[in-house]
Amino acid sequence: MRRFVIIGQTATASADFRLDDLPSTSGRVDVLLRCVRAALLVSHGVRRDVVVDLVLGAGAGHERIVRFVGKDAKFIRPDERSLATLLKKVLAADTDANPSGLVEVRPGVWLARGGFEWVIANLESETPYILDSLGEDIREIAAISAPRTAFFVGDHIGLSDAVRGRLAALGARSLSVGPVSLHAEDVVAVIANEIDRREAGPALRHPRGTPEKPAQR
Amino acid sequence: MRRFVIIGQTATASADFRLDDLPSTSGRVDVLLRCVRAALLVSHGVRRDVVVDLVLGAGAGHERIVRFVGKDAKFIRPDERSLATLLKKVLAADTDANPSGLVEVRPGVWLARGGFEWVIANLESETPYILDSLGEDIREIAAISAPRTAFFVGDHIGLSDAVRGRLAALGARSLSVGPVSLHAEDVVAVIANEIDRREAGPALRHPRGTPEKPAQR
Repeated sequence: MRRFVIIGQTATASADFRLDDLPSTSGRVDVLLRCVRAALLVSHGVRRDVVVDLVLGAGAGHERIVRFVGKDAKFIRPDERSLATLLKKVLAADTDANPSGLVEVRPGVWLARGGFEWVIANLESETPYILDSLGEDIREIAAISAPRTAFFVGDHIGLSDAVRGRLAALGARSLSVGPVSLHAEDVVAVIANEIDRREAGPALRHPRGTPEKPAQR
Repeated sequence: MRRFVIIGQTATASADFRLDDLPSTSGRVDVLLRCVRAALLVSHGVRRDVVVDLVLGAGAGHERIVRFVGKDAKFIRPDERSLATLLKKVLAADTDANPSGLVEVRPGVWLARGGFEWVIANLESETPYILDSLGEDIREIAAISAPRTAFFVGDHIGLSDAVRGRLAALGARSLSVGPVSLHAEDVVAVIANEIDRREAGPALRHPRGTPEKPAQR
């Protein structure tokens, strides 16, 4: 299982944002939603072995986690407005049924009170990695092939020094996906591709140059 | 210069789509717009050496190209609604000023009458590649480092057999980005990352493990 933890430094934890002006009214939740698509969706399907945690409302006192669980997720559409509509419904739910934990609001989509520290406390023995344009090259780190990994990715601002420090104290290594600093969603796409390659292995790759049919999506 | 040609098999060439229901009313222009973001935008900037051609209205008789030129593009925002708003304005323009060629409607954003064949006729001696989940592995093809390359990418449906055949007749090789068939925008992100790595070269890579500052976006 691979986990992506996307930390919104400005992202609202409230459902009170406007679909027709998502970036300005949500504190850039659009960035986080694009990460959800990149992590979870492939051509005609969902990555069943992926979990995405969005950390919302960081620093506001009113923090919440929205978790997407690939193996259970249904009706996840790729466009930003559909994802924002889904998020709005999830954030409008209350967690009174289970104030200390997660509540499943939609199939495979869960809500919890809590922030970054909640995610840390609830890691399932996964090895954490910090995504950082100055980190070690992901292609050269064998350990990311391990079955349990958690990738911590910043938003349009990056990751705060506090989050970096906390993760480093947990032993998290810093990973880079390449020489150019990319949008968070592209970082996620490149990580997913690297793991796809590791999991397929050389023997499982399709024969090269087979002059056959498409299916790019 | 790297060119991405994104071919919409169902995408409208008209400005008559709804921003609040983009996928259904535009023939999945949302897919193409996400490719524009992935090709053009990086953390706090634009890839100046990239051109993106969107082929719209394929098969409808009323075909148009919208071209984004990285070195001239301004005010390109990453969220889908902003990109769709920009596209709407561009498609509402007329090309009477230059019926046979391109008209710059916004800084770095051009409109032309024409479809796939127009793009082929206007390639600037670039080597064409077909993105195909059954193609050769992009990591093993040295030629994509050449300064002039054009990557032809399908939409949510893929590329038509006619387009594949035409490109193959031009000598285009088929490239795959990995063992899993990805969304078009993720294919673009992975290609961009591969080229970033080639261009940086081993000597230009930042030192590994430098314990420095963020900037993931």
